[in-house]
Amino acid sequence: MIVYKDNLAKLAGIVGSHTKTFLLLDENSERFCLDILKNSGVLTGDFVKIVIPAGEQNKSIDTVQYIWLQLVENKADRRSLLINVGGGMVTDIGGFAASCYQRGIDFINIPTTLLAMIDAAVGGKTGIDFQGLKNQIGVFSQPLAVVVLFDFLATLPKRELLSGLAEIIKYGFIVDKSFLDASPTEDFIRQSIAIKDEITDGDANERGRRKILNFGHTVGHAIETYLNCHGMDIRHGEAVAMGMVSALYLSEKLCGLDPRWTTLYKEIYAKNFVRYNLGNIPAEELLEIMRHDKKNEGGDIRFVLIEAPGKPVFDVVVDLKYILDSISYLIDYMEDENYWSK
Amino acid sequence: MIVYKDNLAKLAGIVGSHTKTFLLLDENSERFCLDILKNSGVLTGDFVKIVIPAGEQNKSIDTVQYIWLQLVENKADRRSLLINVGGGMVTDIGGFAASCYQRGIDFINIPTTLLAMIDAAVGGKTGIDFQGLKNQIGVFSQPLAVVVLFDFLATLPKRELLSGLAEIIKYGFIVDKSFLDASPTEDFIRQSIAIKDEITDGDANERGRRKILNFGHTVGHAIETYLNCHGMDIRHGEAVAMGMVSALYLSEKLCGLDPRWTTLYKEIYAKNFVRYNLGNIPAEELLEIMRHDKKNEGGDIRFVLIEAPGKPVFDVVVDLKYILDSISYLIDYMEDENYWSK
Repeated sequence: MIVYKDNLAKLAGIVGSHTKTFLLLDENSERFCLDILKNSGVLTGDFVKIVIPAGEQNKSIDTVQYIWLQLVENKADRRSLLINVGGGMVTDIGGFAASCYQRGIDFINIPTTLLAMIDAAVGGKTGIDFQGLKNQIGVFSQPLAVVVLFDFLATLPKRELLSGLAEIIKYGFIVDKSFLDASPTEDFIRQSIAIKDEITDGDANERGRRKILNFGHTVGHAIETYLNCHGMDIRHGEAVAMGMVSALYLSEKLCGLDPRWTTLYKEIYAKNFVRYNLGNIPAEELLEIMRHDKKNEGGDIRFVLIEAPGKPVFDVVVDLKYILDSISYLIDYMEDENYWSK
Repeated sequence: MIVYKDNLAKLAGIVGSHTKTFLLLDENSERFCLDILKNSGVLTGDFVKIVIPAGEQNKSIDTVQYIWLQLVENKADRRSLLINVGGGMVTDIGGFAASCYQRGIDFINIPTTLLAMIDAAVGGKTGIDFQGLKNQIGVFSQPLAVVVLFDFLATLPKRELLSGLAEIIKYGFIVDKSFLDASPTEDFIRQSIAIKDEITDGDANERGRRKILNFGHTVGHAIETYLNCHGMDIRHGEAVAMGMVSALYLSEKLCGLDPRWTTLYKEIYAKNFVRYNLGNIPAEELLEIMRHDKKNEGGDIRFVLIEAPGKPVFDVVVDLKYILDSISYLIDYMEDENYWSK
């Protein structure tokens, strides 16, 4: 259930039916979002606060154990409720912690970043990183509700907003090309959430159509993992924005996509997103990370590609040669002054 | 799906549809059961072996991390299969590890103890202990199949067989009094598995009728946890066997159970199970453990009791005074030479 400010009343009954309410925050959401949340009318009764360190490097089994310990020490029972307040890191780890505590207690997600609103908090994927692999450990488990408060958007740095924008623009390729003109407005956000909710509702465990949401994610995830492991600060949305360049290149080669969409997207990217120097990235290591990607089976590397905007195909096994070409294509694009000198 | 030797053929297709097979064993099942398994025809293709240390103290998040690490290093993907071979500790922890790896891979349980055959391996409860609390962390997740090979029974010490017998006799109180005469024969085992499968199938997440399986477990779990934490070696079935004495006492007091069933059970217990000296056990600590029991909500302690054999009632909130009485009753029974001198 998606809850906006205009139907907040629904929420009080849901929260109140639990024996105890726990609020999971990271250092950032505690500092920037807790007061906004208190003023929003979402929190009506008492709660126990659990605060974890921020950052993807803390999306770990150690942090999960800390959350479980707080739940035990504060006598959380099966009818307790965990409310996750933060970006995707908090909603992912909190959803996982709740889903395993006493074999599963209820949880609610209150995303505080744009990316979490339209992506991580919706759809029931929970998880933590393990051995440098993103979301390697987790479960599919639906939140009782996702509460979307646009007030949080004003707290976000521009870079964070743009990271979320990448996932909105993604819908321009897999659902409807009108999203290619998106900006991070309430209207586009509501539409994006509705799409994600609809797609994931019909395929909770990602056996079929849900996979189209991974457009741009195969190369994107690999770049994100590689850069994170080498101490570089990269946002998930930024990595997906880059991954879409490679995915469009492959879509041209393998699915007959009209090249003008790739050209258009390179303009959109240059207008909105960060230019990364990827010249030193070892393509072989990216391939190794992709082989570990959960989306793959039996050693193959699978992509979501498009025949045209709104016409995605998934489970496309792509030859290593083409994958390497698509990475070179992305690197060349980042080095092409024609796009960046404007 | 329950698979016996007479319908093993079903299994080959199921196993073969996976990209890779992993076999989880503990030191005991590797030593005593792996050869039997190899000769049984269950394992038709290649497999990667993962061996963990035996014992409840290793049913921990550390061991789960070790299993996950082996899966990562051996490139397990979403279509891989984990086959858990061992007692309840192995099927519980293996089921949990599989259910969280890449948000869930398939697993099969091959229980090697009587208790695991009729209880832990069937019904989809997975989990690990945390902070001294049994199965505090876990998920509900069904195995693809449970393979029951009676050949393993010959490997078991008598004490292990009797621990399993306690859970069979339990059905005498919650389902059909004919089980009060049970012995660990293939016939009683098949019947017990069928009952557990039927009850858990209808209530996978333990919202209702499934709770009756916890008869004897409220006091039993508390004794088990207390003794385990104090370095004593007690089997789960032994603890449940004791817990049933307390549950029958409470059933007399609160549900009008005819006292002759309690008397009969005390005879059955003395004939089959171990006499424990519980005189030094601090009842207050048992209460504290019960308060943490997952079955309870909002601080109440809930019991499964019976009005008569085959007529269970669940979610009975019992006053602390009565609980303390029921513990005293159990302690007195253990000290009553009338039962033990025979």
